[in-house]
Amino acid sequence: MLAKKEFYPEKNKILLAVDCVIFGYRDGELQLLTFRREVEPFAGEWSLIGSIIDENEDLDEAPTRILQEITGLQKVFLEQLHSFGDKNRDTGARVVSVAYWSLIQSTDKINVANHTAQWVSINKVPKLVLDHNKMVDLAIQKMQEHVRYRPIGFELLPKKFTLPQLLSVYEAIHQRPIDDRNFRRKILATGLLIKLEIKDTVNSKKGAY
Amino acid sequence: MLAKKEFYPEKNKILLAVDCVIFGYRDGELQLLTFRREVEPFAGEWSLIGSIIDENEDLDEAPTRILQEITGLQKVFLEQLHSFGDKNRDTGARVVSVAYWSLIQSTDKINVANHTAQWVSINKVPKLVLDHNKMVDLAIQKMQEHVRYRPIGFELLPKKFTLPQLLSVYEAIHQRPIDDRNFRRKILATGLLIKLEIKDTVNSKKGAY
Repeated sequence: MLAKKEFYPEKNKILLAVDCVIFGYRDGELQLLTFRREVEPFAGEWSLIGSIIDENEDLDEAPTRILQEITGLQKVFLEQLHSFGDKNRDTGARVVSVAYWSLIQSTDKINVANHTAQWVSINKVPKLVLDHNKMVDLAIQKMQEHVRYRPIGFELLPKKFTLPQLLSVYEAIHQRPIDDRNFRRKILATGLLIKLEIKDTVNSKKGAY
Repeated sequence: MLAKKEFYPEKNKILLAVDCVIFGYRDGELQLLTFRREVEPFAGEWSLIGSIIDENEDLDEAPTRILQEITGLQKVFLEQLHSFGDKNRDTGARVVSVAYWSLIQSTDKINVANHTAQWVSINKVPKLVLDHNKMVDLAIQKMQEHVRYRPIGFELLPKKFTLPQLLSVYEAIHQRPIDDRNFRRKILATGLLIKLEIKDTVNSKKGAY
């Protein structure tokens, strides 16, 4: 039988980080939240929002805390994506990072404080530090799978919206045009929507329900 | 700007473990690989196969190594499931655990060496140490989602098999009876199978293709 001190060896201790892949939707476009990394190595380069977790903090609490500290964003529901642990992924120290993701409405109301957080278009994601671009790629894939089975896109729209507006959300997430008639048929078949007898005559000549 | 030593603080270092949820399929039954934990706290109680990762080891290499050390099982393809990091999950030390899962053919050929690994029926999983039962529950859910979109069940059968055999695999995974005729229709519609003009007249009176 192994002694307890052999099973929990001090020398095996490493740092654990969390990184947040935050997608924002606004006006038909999907954006990614980035900031300028503030520490060496790679200080000043583009990074996801992330940091080392505290030794006395639940893992799942860390991303919410760090996101709020750096951007002011509160109560964002983050879902665990994947843990990244190649031994050489961070040249600063041995750090395993647990990536989280979320999809929110992007506004200009990020309180950047002393930080330089900003939204970038998903089509113009810069080279990020470490393996952060891999995290973004995996999160995009996860988000696309996610909306296939759950109506996540609805959260990004007001309570009353038109089908063309919803189509825009889905096209932004999947990053390709979606056939309008198939989309209508499938979405209405889910039974998740209630058709209102109100037409949007501002954005559509015929008017969209 | 934070100094490097403030960003990678020694005091935040913790232990990282991996735990393996290994499902095995045999004769219509799904099993789970467990072993008797060998260290305090909870020495002698039932546990998943797991251990602390080395500081110089890729995270994704650790579960394969540990599984082989404890059971002799080689080259098992493990998929990352979820990271479990509540601060009090392990009373022995602060340990975050990355759970992995796999579905293999269970045989009696586990080389238990000095360990006490054994298969238990999925319907009779004992109380496991720490949060290991949560890991099993999540892995079952993941496996059920997984087979809905990918033909994972096929790996558990010989190259030539009958539809009733495949149905048994799916019933074991979903832990409920599945309608025979719907199953045939759906499976054949995937185009993944080639129907052979050979009948199994041993297990079926009429003979199954």
